[in-house]
Amino acid sequence: MSEWFANGQSIDTVDIRDRAVQYGDGLFETIAIRDSLPRFWPLHVARLQLGCHRLGITATDDAKLAADLDKALHQCTIDTTHCTAKIVVTAGSGQRGYRRSGAAKASVWVGVFDSRRIPASTYKDGIDVRLCHLRLAEQPQLAGLKTLNRLEQVMACAEWDDTDIFEGLMLDAADRLICGTMSNVFIVSANALKTPAITRCGVAGIMRQHLLAIIVDAGIDCEVADISVDEALAADEIFLTNSQFGVLPVRRCGQYAWSKYPVSRRIMELAAQNSVPECRI
Amino acid sequence: MSEWFANGQSIDTVDIRDRAVQYGDGLFETIAIRDSLPRFWPLHVARLQLGCHRLGITATDDAKLAADLDKALHQCTIDTTHCTAKIVVTAGSGQRGYRRSGAAKASVWVGVFDSRRIPASTYKDGIDVRLCHLRLAEQPQLAGLKTLNRLEQVMACAEWDDTDIFEGLMLDAADRLICGTMSNVFIVSANALKTPAITRCGVAGIMRQHLLAIIVDAGIDCEVADISVDEALAADEIFLTNSQFGVLPVRRCGQYAWSKYPVSRRIMELAAQNSVPECRI
Repeated sequence: MSEWFANGQSIDTVDIRDRAVQYGDGLFETIAIRDSLPRFWPLHVARLQLGCHRLGITATDDAKLAADLDKALHQCTIDTTHCTAKIVVTAGSGQRGYRRSGAAKASVWVGVFDSRRIPASTYKDGIDVRLCHLRLAEQPQLAGLKTLNRLEQVMACAEWDDTDIFEGLMLDAADRLICGTMSNVFIVSANALKTPAITRCGVAGIMRQHLLAIIVDAGIDCEVADISVDEALAADEIFLTNSQFGVLPVRRCGQYAWSKYPVSRRIMELAAQNSVPECRI
Repeated sequence: MSEWFANGQSIDTVDIRDRAVQYGDGLFETIAIRDSLPRFWPLHVARLQLGCHRLGITATDDAKLAADLDKALHQCTIDTTHCTAKIVVTAGSGQRGYRRSGAAKASVWVGVFDSRRIPASTYKDGIDVRLCHLRLAEQPQLAGLKTLNRLEQVMACAEWDDTDIFEGLMLDAADRLICGTMSNVFIVSANALKTPAITRCGVAGIMRQHLLAIIVDAGIDCEVADISVDEALAADEIFLTNSQFGVLPVRRCGQYAWSKYPVSRRIMELAAQNSVPECRI
């Protein structure tokens, strides 16, 4: 179930000449709505504005984005005590051709979706993941952003249909672990935390960013660095993060299995104390 | 001026839930229409079907694609003696999430556009190009295809606004010349032709494919191989190819300039004899 809005009006269609349709020329944010409010709104809007700046898309001011989201949440028929919102910002409508006209006004669309609730047992027991065959291409000019060019993630997700597999982990061509198709990843080795640098490819997730901040505040070290797939699979623990589910420990990846998550649980409790209560076991 | 059609009906909008809008999950072809007929239709439809196969998009049969294009050309108000058609095939509408539902029917949209006519003097004098700063990312699983994920080309085109620059040449991270933002490239050194391999990134253009076939038929050697930017700039001649304009010699690229195009002109005359009459000087 989903409902879409633009400028406070319900919409089901968009201009076929919009550059999102023709070139994927835009960005999006997927925001957890809790008790009818967007969680981590300042982080989402900051990433969106950074993306607009880097792509050269005419900025939409923060207040207008917040107002559009607020109107959508008020007008939709979905239960906003626990749902997901998606804000899409595009380069607007234009002529044929990769070059933007310069005059185009950005399009802003807001979608509201039912969101699945992850069972408490999943937080406790962990999730099964796999390594994707598709390697993320290195494009530093887009790294970190959540653009509308998502074919790599689409193709990676098409690699499996086993519903027991919760997520696929993605490597780059140099066998570095980068992220999941819809999540970021942290590893724990000898009680030290590490998460991949998102400088060549991958999306710099909002939950990752929130966790990095609260981990530092809690006096826990966490290194942001390159991680080889071998180092990751040899780790004591692996956990994934995402703005919707928060933090989930990894139980299995192919022939590798984990059964105890002491550090992951400490991070989950820290998240639970800091706006992500679903992580409390 | 552009007019769009789906299933023989005029359209201005598309479903916001279409995966083209949300993820750029689709492909397109840009086809030269000459005397109301699509030029190189078999090559265009073959690349489109290859793309659908590689992306895992439900195939639309060739006859249906041809019929949709034919209907659009008959219904539009644009002069189809010389225009451009664009066929977009997408993974169809779906739920939120990178994973396709499997049940989705592909969307097929046909656009018809006025096309600019390149002056005869441009074919004679050549064009000015530049090297783009943005490097193409290596993604072998998408290389060759014309997908709806085109942010690299959009960003490369945003690098300049000097209207004297006709096209930007794009390199990969290893300083290999790959293609233009909307064209392929050939170099001539000691009368030998060479064009970059399109195996890691870039689009395998229809005019490039047509030329490779007629060049071989004419008994002219042409190597498909990696070309460093240094090798390209030191070449005796460079020419660009594209399904709309055919073949155009390069006159200048930054501080490098060329004034004689004997081999390029031979190829242009060969193209003119083989369905691309606009290349005749």
